[in-house]
Amino acid sequence: MSQSLPAYAESDFTLLDRYWRAANYLSVGQIYLMDNPLLREPLKPEHIKPRLLGHWGTTPGLNFIYAHLNRAIRQRDLDMIYVCGPGHGGPGMVANTWLEGTYSEIYPQVSDDAVGMQRLFKQFSFPGGIPSHAAPETPGSINEGGELGYSLSHAFGAAFDNPDLVVPCVIGDGEAETGPLASSWHGIKFLNPRRDGAVLPVLHLNGYKIANPTLLGRASDDDLHQLFSGYGYEPLFVCGDDPQKMHPLMAAALDSALDRIRAYQQQARNGSDAVTLPRWPMIILRSPKGWTGPKTVDGKKVEDFWRAHQVPVANCRDDEGHREILEQWLLSYQPDTLFDEQGRLKPELRALAPEGDKRMGATPFANGGRLRRELVTPALADHAIAVARPGETQAQSTEILGRYLSALFAQNQDNFRLFGPDETASNRLTPVFDVTNRTWMEAIKPYDEQLASDGRVMEILSEHQCQGWLEGYLLTGRHGLFNCYEAFIHIVASMFNQHAKWLKVSRSLPWRAPVASLNYLLSSHVWRQDHNGYSHQDPGFIDHVANKKADIVRIYLPPDANTLLWVGDHCLKTWDRINVIVAGKQPAPQWLTLDAAVKHCEAGMGSWPWAGNEHAGSEPDVVMACAGDVPTMETLAAVDLLRQYLPDLSVRVVNVVDLMALQTQQQHPHGKAEAEFDALFTRDKPVIFAFHGYPSLIHRLTYKRNNHRNFHVRGFMEEGTTTTPFDMTVLNELDRFHLAQEAILRVPGLAEKHGDVLDTLAEKLAEHHRYVREYGEDLPEVQGWKWPSQRGEGAPE
Amino acid sequence: MSQSLPAYAESDFTLLDRYWRAANYLSVGQIYLMDNPLLREPLKPEHIKPRLLGHWGTTPGLNFIYAHLNRAIRQRDLDMIYVCGPGHGGPGMVANTWLEGTYSEIYPQVSDDAVGMQRLFKQFSFPGGIPSHAAPETPGSINEGGELGYSLSHAFGAAFDNPDLVVPCVIGDGEAETGPLASSWHGIKFLNPRRDGAVLPVLHLNGYKIANPTLLGRASDDDLHQLFSGYGYEPLFVCGDDPQKMHPLMAAALDSALDRIRAYQQQARNGSDAVTLPRWPMIILRSPKGWTGPKTVDGKKVEDFWRAHQVPVANCRDDEGHREILEQWLLSYQPDTLFDEQGRLKPELRALAPEGDKRMGATPFANGGRLRRELVTPALADHAIAVARPGETQAQSTEILGRYLSALFAQNQDNFRLFGPDETASNRLTPVFDVTNRTWMEAIKPYDEQLASDGRVMEILSEHQCQGWLEGYLLTGRHGLFNCYEAFIHIVASMFNQHAKWLKVSRSLPWRAPVASLNYLLSSHVWRQDHNGYSHQDPGFIDHVANKKADIVRIYLPPDANTLLWVGDHCLKTWDRINVIVAGKQPAPQWLTLDAAVKHCEAGMGSWPWAGNEHAGSEPDVVMACAGDVPTMETLAAVDLLRQYLPDLSVRVVNVVDLMALQTQQQHPHGKAEAEFDALFTRDKPVIFAFHGYPSLIHRLTYKRNNHRNFHVRGFMEEGTTTTPFDMTVLNELDRFHLAQEAILRVPGLAEKHGDVLDTLAEKLAEHHRYVREYGEDLPEVQGWKWPSQRGEGAPE
Repeated sequence: MSQSLPAYAESDFTLLDRYWRAANYLSVGQIYLMDNPLLREPLKPEHIKPRLLGHWGTTPGLNFIYAHLNRAIRQRDLDMIYVCGPGHGGPGMVANTWLEGTYSEIYPQVSDDAVGMQRLFKQFSFPGGIPSHAAPETPGSINEGGELGYSLSHAFGAAFDNPDLVVPCVIGDGEAETGPLASSWHGIKFLNPRRDGAVLPVLHLNGYKIANPTLLGRASDDDLHQLFSGYGYEPLFVCGDDPQKMHPLMAAALDSALDRIRAYQQQARNGSDAVTLPRWPMIILRSPKGWTGPKTVDGKKVEDFWRAHQVPVANCRDDEGHREILEQWLLSYQPDTLFDEQGRLKPELRALAPEGDKRMGATPFANGGRLRRELVTPALADHAIAVARPGETQAQSTEILGRYLSALFAQNQDNFRLFGPDETASNRLTPVFDVTNRTWMEAIKPYDEQLASDGRVMEILSEHQCQGWLEGYLLTGRHGLFNCYEAFIHIVASMFNQHAKWLKVSRSLPWRAPVASLNYLLSSHVWRQDHNGYSHQDPGFIDHVANKKADIVRIYLPPDANTLLWVGDHCLKTWDRINVIVAGKQPAPQWLTLDAAVKHCEAGMGSWPWAGNEHAGSEPDVVMACAGDVPTMETLAAVDLLRQYLPDLSVRVVNVVDLMALQTQQQHPHGKAEAEFDALFTRDKPVIFAFHGYPSLIHRLTYKRNNHRNFHVRGFMEEGTTTTPFDMTVLNELDRFHLAQEAILRVPGLAEKHGDVLDTLAEKLAEHHRYVREYGEDLPEVQGWKWPSQRGEGAPE
Repeated sequence: MSQSLPAYAESDFTLLDRYWRAANYLSVGQIYLMDNPLLREPLKPEHIKPRLLGHWGTTPGLNFIYAHLNRAIRQRDLDMIYVCGPGHGGPGMVANTWLEGTYSEIYPQVSDDAVGMQRLFKQFSFPGGIPSHAAPETPGSINEGGELGYSLSHAFGAAFDNPDLVVPCVIGDGEAETGPLASSWHGIKFLNPRRDGAVLPVLHLNGYKIANPTLLGRASDDDLHQLFSGYGYEPLFVCGDDPQKMHPLMAAALDSALDRIRAYQQQARNGSDAVTLPRWPMIILRSPKGWTGPKTVDGKKVEDFWRAHQVPVANCRDDEGHREILEQWLLSYQPDTLFDEQGRLKPELRALAPEGDKRMGATPFANGGRLRRELVTPALADHAIAVARPGETQAQSTEILGRYLSALFAQNQDNFRLFGPDETASNRLTPVFDVTNRTWMEAIKPYDEQLASDGRVMEILSEHQCQGWLEGYLLTGRHGLFNCYEAFIHIVASMFNQHAKWLKVSRSLPWRAPVASLNYLLSSHVWRQDHNGYSHQDPGFIDHVANKKADIVRIYLPPDANTLLWVGDHCLKTWDRINVIVAGKQPAPQWLTLDAAVKHCEAGMGSWPWAGNEHAGSEPDVVMACAGDVPTMETLAAVDLLRQYLPDLSVRVVNVVDLMALQTQQQHPHGKAEAEFDALFTRDKPVIFAFHGYPSLIHRLTYKRNNHRNFHVRGFMEEGTTTTPFDMTVLNELDRFHLAQEAILRVPGLAEKHGDVLDTLAEKLAEHHRYVREYGEDLPEVQGWKWPSQRGEGAPE
């Protein structure tokens, strides 16, 4: 565990220490003060905010690291982005970006003088002001750190394909206890020193969470050294509480780490040999929680303890003793030696910050929209599947999209990646492996397939890493797609929330340039997880998604390959959104030509006259609606049955691709106008809606519609097991027989006249039940079902 | 990394190796065969299932471990529960429980002879049969392993307070990549050798996932040794592919690990000194994926590669060559040497399995309901808060529940634990620390508070661990409560899914005894996360919960402390459910006496005549409904305004505690009958519904109700930031002023007559807006608002 580091004199850091004190001063000021920012008069109750909010504990450490990174940037002319895991330390990020000038450039009213400083202080955690966490409002931030666990995956996502970027990532010892963070250390095994930038993790151990010690904070140096060596790092320790000793230690560790990074990169970039996985450096910084703050308050330990977590001295308005502690604390930073008469940072300190876009608050890498280059997208026609007549062709939708993605990869080197938890092949996106490989930096064996250090398909069995990497990749200006089993995307439900929140806020900030949308392709979906069983069957992620602000989210359920192509292409061209696409991977009948698919998808939903049996000149007796590929097939098969048994019934088929079109225009920008909706679904006819997900979502989206009371929705009812694909639909009463029954039961008077048809359908279900349990397969008539025109029965196309 | 292990002769394991071969034979049989189970005639196409489903890759390793654990159980008379992380290896778990006799005891039709063997084979992954994963149907299982990541936390949960239990937990190298699993290694830091059992992790490295190598599988032994030493373990390696060499290695590692475990426990239990954290052993087993299966198929590498993951040889019905491979593979286990004429396991092999409840398939620890002891619950009256008149008392609801929990802890040593991610104090459950501490096995410093090795409050900054530990604790027969910030409970949304699925299936199995319900207390909820801001504001978990099978889930929104007491107590007494309670922690007015609270909660919802202003003998003009503590307060404040401004308006107040009561009786067992619902909400009067969560959930639950079209729901609209508590409600238009406005607008004719009142309310909102941004606090009239009777205004109580 010995580490040999360069040596520096304490005196080398006099200015840097003052810079750090300035940041600490501004941090405390933000938490406490609404006036008298420079303490040029004695501190009075009215200078202090009525509600004290914010987190001091982690902040001095964040400031310490920031100041040292500034030094390195200047010395080495680096591009750096500061990923701040302990996002609660928002005051530190704000303070530093103000010191370096970025803050006032972005928010001119918060000027770089005493007036601005007062505003800087008051606005923090104040109504109408700014949040207490590093947030979209915070210059230089790509990681909120409100919900902990994702900083290091964001950092890796930022570093991929940014060869000249160094991403220091501060990880608090609280965050380090989370699952997502614990697995994110493996990120180096996907980082290629030839084409990617570097991530420099700084594990910031201050020993405590809200009211508890931390597991890693209490671990021995020896255990920590082993743990991180085991992950593949070379840990460099910086431990202590005396600032004068800590500055040279930190500088030495940082220089040593950056030297190593440069050496590894040069070695990989200068040679032509295969790149190998370096033992990347990381820094373990042990410093007291609430460092430089009050040691004790009311006789209780505060500094270096969890009581320093938020507001160390709480009652400063009413308690003179507390106010005195606060005043002395603020004065201990000697503000008069830091700021000039006008309240501006003194020039010799200002000179310590980097300049222009090298400032970590100003770097375009943390405002990725500024760097975003549009994707070069392949022509859909080159990949569309020919559909001479509906149902004629069988294809695997995701495989067709895979061909498109393969062409996309070929044209967008270094600007696009595909992410997935070891499911890219399983989800049938295999054509991408024609042009690229899986990223793999560990050893490659002669018999391995589709692995390469320069692969662009990112697979790790952690949905959290896939999501975190992709978010980091997008927020730094690139594009991507996350493919995942539908059921397991719930694993990142909370990360989805946080990203949606990030987008909502950043869209309101004119200085934040739009970033590419986060796109999910959910395949291996509920209806085709018959083989993996109930644990793999859950279509509820889209319910979760639909809760978010209307303009942030889109949900698409393409019924076949050409619609999936259009939807995929469309989503990849959007920005500042989250698009969810649910599409199957199994061979399935194809319904629409590319032209028809384009028209249908652009409308979001529409009737399929070729599929219906509608009598001209009047409204249909029943609307058979569907959303999702399997429900669409079952609906068409049900219509086929109705045509056979009840040829006089007037049936309309409506297919919904864009789920948001079901809402009203007031609820969602994609919502269909009332008249248009009523024209499709009628105002009073029964609508049998076969839906991919839980039926309640359709009710939720349509309850304001005129005809809502006649919507009868079939979908997933949590009835699943290991069985056949068709039996899955039967268990949930979404199959053709149940749908046809429902139509007959809902059209007034029909059931009374056609009890025989209902009997026939019931017998079909009984027959299915017997057959599947005997032979383990679906009925031949189900397996071999074809759309009428394919059977030569001359039904309309 | 040298390890000194006891030495055994290869010949010691002849029988054990045959037992292992029997398990492997049965595993292959399950994946492939529907007939000819003992291969006593040549293998024909019709003996083979039409759809081949299942996972071979991990199975031989699981069988290997199982056989060795059997040996240890017999030799040491141990109680063991086998937690099978690679749950896909279901065939192995089923095979072993059949071999030991448990399977046939539970499922007599699957007898222990050739007839039963044929059924055992056919039922696997077959319609009407059993799932392919270790599932509730699988004897001995508490971990499905369909969604990966939770095995080790389940194992720790099982071991807590079970001092004589040893929990071997097999972790696949795929699962080990997930975040939740990566943090679960820290579990030993919460395991007390004096009072808890032991967990023995077996990291089963077979090198591959679905279509990829694994990160840990490709890591060097040295890196692995460092990694797990760093986590605090002593890793013991068992590596190889020659069964004859592997048996003695495995036995030695297992004996060595169990010796160490016993020594640590004895040391802790015999002495009176404070217990210390041992360096618990773990086993790292490197063996080939698909071990003993076909080496190659069609010239492609299968054994020891990812192609062995599922079905190594696929086309056995149609391809004679494939069928030949399968036949040779099955015969390689020499079934005639394993099973007798009747197809029963030969007696000398049967003798290797433990007996009775020592069998891992039969252990009651894996069917925890058999061990469940009811909680001794404190009397509510001892903890209820006195409420002489509504609104008179202020209290922190969760603090009152904390007092109840404190009494509960005192009476239920070793049968109850409280779980939370470092938020127990923040959520104001602090009274529990009067009787217990946080569990802490690392060093304790003199100034630490509320930490002890025998504490019963489990805090780690990982919602995944809290959930996983609690699930393991419940499934082995104990009780618990998970307290969490509302927004961050989404982190375990997917774990919730899996547990709900587990419960649904296990409830259908008569042999699975009911386990205690999983209870969530969500505090620090959306309306009081004004200080932490938008990232902490999300009430959507209950939407997710509401998707599950009606009889599995309950959602409670108690409006005050006494209702929370009743709800908490009630939930702790239920079984086989998931109860979600959302309740605030901030000082808030108290409405109901304990008696009133009991009546109200038992009904699930009801009108509060003391709060309304209803004219006798006729229906009210408007129903002001509410669910949740903050919405209830705002509703009452709105009613207060309406009384002042429009004393003649007839207002009914309805409060909903049990959200499921809103549904119809057909939808949920708690659903109110139509007449009862209509009596409360009327059939045609406007209902202004102030709701804790997203408004759509109320629409989703009530869309079948007669009066649904008149429901106007206010709730969270994703408008949040760092501000004051009242401003949070204003931003989302859930505040008293907006609610009063809405009531006036919705009662026909009222707005036309009382435009002045609307103007006044609008001016109040404007005043709020100005005040909060100037002073950072809420309007004094809002902060100081009291229910009329408290103001001496003589309003009804």
